[in-house]
Amino acid sequence: MKQVLSVLVENEAGVLSKITGLFSRRGFNIDSLAVGPTEDPTMSRITMIVDNGNSAIEQVEKQLNKLIGVIKIKRLEAGELSGKELMLIKVAANSKTRIEIKTLCDIMDAKIDDISATTITIALADSPEKTALFQDMMRPFGILEVARTGLIAIQKGAKKITE
Amino acid sequence: MKQVLSVLVENEAGVLSKITGLFSRRGFNIDSLAVGPTEDPTMSRITMIVDNGNSAIEQVEKQLNKLIGVIKIKRLEAGELSGKELMLIKVAANSKTRIEIKTLCDIMDAKIDDISATTITIALADSPEKTALFQDMMRPFGILEVARTGLIAIQKGAKKITE
Repeated sequence: MKQVLSVLVENEAGVLSKITGLFSRRGFNIDSLAVGPTEDPTMSRITMIVDNGNSAIEQVEKQLNKLIGVIKIKRLEAGELSGKELMLIKVAANSKTRIEIKTLCDIMDAKIDDISATTITIALADSPEKTALFQDMMRPFGILEVARTGLIAIQKGAKKITE
Repeated sequence: MKQVLSVLVENEAGVLSKITGLFSRRGFNIDSLAVGPTEDPTMSRITMIVDNGNSAIEQVEKQLNKLIGVIKIKRLEAGELSGKELMLIKVAANSKTRIEIKTLCDIMDAKIDDISATTITIALADSPEKTALFQDMMRPFGILEVARTGLIAIQKGAKKITE
């Protein structure tokens, strides 16, 4: 089962390595992971999607809580999160297909970021379902390269993760 | 000095942990890291910004290349990359400030993703400079929560990272 975890950590070398090592030793697969700065320069936020198979996620949460550098962990349920990911995708394009690609970008609110005589590079920030759909729509043109951030998520409504 | 590395890896448990462990042992700080799927389901792409201080990045690149599961590493120079990050930001809002926030969103092409009686949650996908600027512009309203993906990047033009 896929689980979305949001982890606030101290911004110091080695914390990320400890966390990924913990999941790796327990045999959990990390489907995606994004770590970036927060409003507080001493803290970073890690958002990860892990597949826990049949193992109990609660045990790993407990062990995470004991790690030095981990400030707060929250498991986010699908209904309570506002989650998005970013995709950069480079597709083959020529004078004939460029207009078709542009139309699909307009429909799905994707932005053209770079262009060459034979390619178009597009950025799309949306739900994982929509980025996957856009990738499907681009496949017939020839996908040359894809980079995806993995999901980031914050709680819906006024609540903060630290509450 | 900040370096942007794009690393193609086999999609298996433990690779991420090995890579972050290597940087941690060498005393490199990882400013941001994003890992997500690629077009090939057997591979993931990791984009990371590392601060190598005075150490030589070349040595770490060599060690990375030797790790099992690492397929390809490329150091991206600022001029040759098309790089973006995604930010989700929750700010305090009331009936008076909502219109000001909406105007700033329109100007900077940010999307309002969720709303409550006292908050607005906004998504922005742009260069790190622009997301930082937007965060600065939101600060007077009261920032409640920020999640950022860290940079993802692909090469400008028609070239692929695997070439």
